[in-house]
Amino acid sequence: MADLLTVDDLRDAWPLLDADERVAGFEALERQEAADFFESLTARGQAQVLLGVPAPERVLWARLLGPDDAVDCLQEVPREDWAQILDALDAPTRREVNVLLAYEEDEAGGLMSPRFVRARPDMTVDEAVRYVRRQARERVVETIYYVYVLDASQRLLGVVSFRELMTAPDDRRLSEIMRTDVTTVGADVPAEEVALLVAREDLLAVPVLDPDGRMQGIVTVDDVVDVLHEEATEDIHKLGGMEALDVPYMQTRMGPMLKKRGGWLAVLFLGELLTANALSRYEHEIASAVVLTLFIPLIISSGGNAGSQAATLVIRAMALGEVKVRDWWLVVRRELVMGLALGGGLALLGFARVLLGEAAFGSFGEHAGRIAATVGLALIGVVTLGTLAGSIMPLLLERVGFDPASASAPFVATVVDVSGLVIYFSVAQVMLSGTLL
Amino acid sequence: MADLLTVDDLRDAWPLLDADERVAGFEALERQEAADFFESLTARGQAQVLLGVPAPERVLWARLLGPDDAVDCLQEVPREDWAQILDALDAPTRREVNVLLAYEEDEAGGLMSPRFVRARPDMTVDEAVRYVRRQARERVVETIYYVYVLDASQRLLGVVSFRELMTAPDDRRLSEIMRTDVTTVGADVPAEEVALLVAREDLLAVPVLDPDGRMQGIVTVDDVVDVLHEEATEDIHKLGGMEALDVPYMQTRMGPMLKKRGGWLAVLFLGELLTANALSRYEHEIASAVVLTLFIPLIISSGGNAGSQAATLVIRAMALGEVKVRDWWLVVRRELVMGLALGGGLALLGFARVLLGEAAFGSFGEHAGRIAATVGLALIGVVTLGTLAGSIMPLLLERVGFDPASASAPFVATVVDVSGLVIYFSVAQVMLSGTLL
Repeated sequence: MADLLTVDDLRDAWPLLDADERVAGFEALERQEAADFFESLTARGQAQVLLGVPAPERVLWARLLGPDDAVDCLQEVPREDWAQILDALDAPTRREVNVLLAYEEDEAGGLMSPRFVRARPDMTVDEAVRYVRRQARERVVETIYYVYVLDASQRLLGVVSFRELMTAPDDRRLSEIMRTDVTTVGADVPAEEVALLVAREDLLAVPVLDPDGRMQGIVTVDDVVDVLHEEATEDIHKLGGMEALDVPYMQTRMGPMLKKRGGWLAVLFLGELLTANALSRYEHEIASAVVLTLFIPLIISSGGNAGSQAATLVIRAMALGEVKVRDWWLVVRRELVMGLALGGGLALLGFARVLLGEAAFGSFGEHAGRIAATVGLALIGVVTLGTLAGSIMPLLLERVGFDPASASAPFVATVVDVSGLVIYFSVAQVMLSGTLL
Repeated sequence: MADLLTVDDLRDAWPLLDADERVAGFEALERQEAADFFESLTARGQAQVLLGVPAPERVLWARLLGPDDAVDCLQEVPREDWAQILDALDAPTRREVNVLLAYEEDEAGGLMSPRFVRARPDMTVDEAVRYVRRQARERVVETIYYVYVLDASQRLLGVVSFRELMTAPDDRRLSEIMRTDVTTVGADVPAEEVALLVAREDLLAVPVLDPDGRMQGIVTVDDVVDVLHEEATEDIHKLGGMEALDVPYMQTRMGPMLKKRGGWLAVLFLGELLTANALSRYEHEIASAVVLTLFIPLIISSGGNAGSQAATLVIRAMALGEVKVRDWWLVVRRELVMGLALGGGLALLGFARVLLGEAAFGSFGEHAGRIAATVGLALIGVVTLGTLAGSIMPLLLERVGFDPASASAPFVATVVDVSGLVIYFSVAQVMLSGTLL
């Protein structure tokens, strides 16, 4: 295989290969292709290559990594393999990496690169352009597209985009042309907030400051793009009722996969056990009117679907910053109207289903009208309840400090299913009392 | 309100304001602040401002839009309002906008800007730098960070990043320093594929070519960031069992919201009606052993949860390009093992629940052991089935040309619930035959 492999073949097959196959495929590439390919890999792929190749070659590839990329690589491998990667870095990069390792992976500090263009406020445009060209040539900066103007104690005074630098007269000083209303973030700002900010303001990079306003590094837009992908994947996994996978689906081994899925599945199962308790209170009604059983799955799944729609909308709107906890009343008001309308619609469908079943096959006997009304009324109640629970739960969980994306699904499902059954049988007791019950 | 409004207040309140309130808030801002704020708005917000302010002012703000932004604005407003926005643009921009309007909104052509830096291959580095500076000063290009080298018929020959331009000797020709292995896309490539490409290769912009290799424009990373946000939101909404909203949650009016949620809720409801049909086949069993009813919600919801986990994982992996339809066998093999393991785990929990209920309260009488075995075995079957259905359905739907994110949920739910009931009662018939049944 190795001899015939093109870089496109390898890229195509990559998600399905294990670590050894990846290394073998990588080593079969021609040198310059391998370098481009290495730079396009995710941190996980880069880490696998680095640990798989012989030590002298490792040095070659590790030199392609900026300090922020090297940190990402380390975070993908077990602690005992860190030394192999750290040893392959040159000394200045290793020092920078050690500083960055102090920050959390999912915060601005963990994303940032310390390699940005620094300048003094009294530098002229001409001096700055020559300085930037030199920095670019020596490949010591992550991006040359912004020049950061710092005072003697590394406090950020202003920013000049390279574009502005190129269009300003040569003899102006940076202090005269810099913008001072700079968007910045603290090192402990969560990665997804940094991503939302960069997206909203169309930035190529955002400076990261320490609490005293001293500049620590920059987060560049390419890191933000990766964060957006990862955050969306995490949220989607959580909304699907499991823990988010750390590694791509096809690369996740059975053990961790089982844990991440089985854990939530068991939590959901334990919650759903309450439905058996709820139903056991109505054994008498079920025995008298077995026909009620037929609509149990229909009614609770309608409540669950309505709840899942509402929860999904609210959770995503919260993630995008469109809805805040303090807006809860606006959300609840909307969802109450929506729940009644959706419930009313489904009630009509359920009502019609019972009457049609009776007309066509005589399935329900003389009390078909009452059964139809029971199903319809229960649907209005259950769907409205599901919609309300689905919209309130994420806000409530966020308020008390839980992750709404993870925890909403099981709570909503349990609340809706259990109280859905109670609503259904309570309606039945009223509607069918003296006839079937 | 208007007099006291700061730009931060307005930004904060923005998601909750209607169009008139937004315009009033915007008009209360000081001029330069208003310009920055306008540029940071989404296309929808920009469109609302443009349509809300008087015509002479509209010209002022419309000039801040590049042709690609103007197209995005138009796509947010009804056709009859287009003239108001088009008339506010200057003539060259209006011409560019008319060209771009020919492309689909969700394809590379609909995202691209025609304003890129073009150069001839025989230009020297020094000439190119001076040319780029002039272009940047005149604000006629979207980004100066790549120089695109074209032949006389506008075919793309190569690319020089501005960084490379800054570090090359002044007298070299672009043809000598340009990279020729350029990543490009066709105008009809879907937006999400462009986004994946830009993300993977850490590009700031990607050139868009027509079928003859002539360069049409560039898609820049800031557009890609917006696409990633929108695509993730769409997928999340679809996975939540509804049509994706086009506008933010708090801005969506009740009518469209009802349609997007009610439509899928009705489809799911109609599918779930089959559960009533399935259950009616077992009326005799239910009447003889009411205790079986208690576990109906538990068993079908476990199958549904397992199916939703599998479907979510496979759909997201497909969206990220990690899993392709031709890999179906690898996926199915994994999920079969996973389904059996997860089902086995839940079976133990279910089995234990019945026996504990019997031990503590004598809930199930002399046949508790058989009931426990029925619940356990049914859970293995239902969870395995749910896991398999959840993983196969998205691949199957993609294969036949449907959107797996939209359509998987209702199909999986219906298949799992209906066949879950059949499995449960079939197991019961075997296990309880001659005792309870």
